Amino acid sequence: MLANFSIIPLGGGESVSKYVAKVIDIVDRSGLNYQLTSMGTLVEGNWDEVMGVIKKCHNVTRRLVPRVYTVITIDDRKGAKGRLTGKVKSVERVLKREVRK
Amino acid sequence: MLANFSIIPLGGGESVSKYVAKVIDIVDRSGLNYQLTSMGTLVEGNWDEVMGVIKKCHNVTRRLVPRVYTVITIDDRKGAKGRLTGKVKSVERVLKREVRK
Amino acid sequence: MLANFSIIPLGGGESVSKYVAKVIDIVDRSGLNYQLTSMGTLVEGNWDEVMGVIKKCHNVTRRLVPRVYTVITIDDRKGAKGRLTGKVKSVERVLKREVRK
Amino acid sequence: MLANFSIIPLGGGESVSKYVAKVIDIVDRSGLNYQLTSMGTLVEGNWDEVMGVIKKCHNVTRRLVPRVYTVITIDDRKGAKGRLTGKVKSVERVLKREVRK
Repeated sequence: MLANFSIIPLGGGESVSKYVAKVIDIVDRSGLNYQLTSMGTLVEGNWDEVMGVIKKCHNVTRRLVPRVYTVITIDDRKGAKGRLTGKVKSVERVLKREVRK
Repeated sequence: MLANFSIIPLGGGESVSKYVAKVIDIVDRSGLNYQLTSMGTLVEGNWDEVMGVIKKCHNVTRRLVPRVYTVITIDDRKGAKGRLTGKVKSVERVLKREVRK
Repeated sequence: MLANFSIIPLGGGESVSKYVAKVIDIVDRSGLNYQLTSMGTLVEGNWDEVMGVIKKCHNVTRRLVPRVYTVITIDDRKGAKGRLTGKVKSVERVLKREVRK
Repeated sequence: MLANFSIIPLGGGESVSKYVAKVIDIVDRSGLNYQLTSMGTLVEGNWDEVMGVIKKCHNVTRRLVPRVYTVITIDDRKGAKGRLTGKVKSVERVLKREVRK
């Protein structure tokens, strides 16, 4: 499955990049495929792998600030793998087909 | 912590209430405090309790349809308990105070 | 359509109930059907009505703090009205039917 | 402000890439900075620009399927511009600094 998550620390000021850096470090060490965007982190794996990483990221942030707000979206499709790049390619194929018409 | 989650089944038609009923049944048997709204289910507990329930709900839906999209938001505040009703009361207190001014 | 939104103020401390009170006041004056939960506000109306209210709530919070994170989920179903209470009833009907079996 | 949105069509089968292609086309014609990921579309602009684009995308999908579920997350920071790439760079700077220590 594919997940996108954002961890928002409350009570630690408006800049969050120092917390994001800790989170990315955890994701990077997990060995899972991931992508960092301006609005969150995409990660691919099974439920326990993905949720294990998000739990660590959430907890490390909660130790630094008194309140954490976390948003997770999951897209889980039967038999689908390599979707971190595959989904974008699939849309690009459709776009090219449309243009050809 | 407090979580709100929605499980959206894809490839099973536009009506989702039969899937929602299965999800509510799992949440109800968990023993955790919860609230059903028109846009999702709120549940209160620690990370493993809450995520254990959401995992079960997600998986039972995925067995019925080929694709599932799940949205989870988490609000985790140090030392906070009984927030499923407590947070709404806290806002009501502020509203009453404002009106008195 | 039915929407659920949460407005998270950053850089204004960990307690958010004073901001939530302002938001509820705006939603209440809008005349739209709404419901306050521990994780957000549900509101029902067409796109412009709902988004007009959320925009006001987002902006009033942004004037008070330097950074705002807002999460909106929308469920838009053809011909559906009175869903703020209707969706929960629909699930309850399915649950009762299941139990009877 | 920076937004991430996903439009999930219900009642139109499990494959959503044909709908995503229409959405990307609308975003592309808007002239706003955007980025397509496997879990959504990031777009940068002011409230009316961003929400105008998302409304069009939501509505074009709703004309094709009977039910649409849309998720929007917004990060709005005072005085911040060029954040679609800027935020990732900011985190990378922190990561490099951490490694140096």
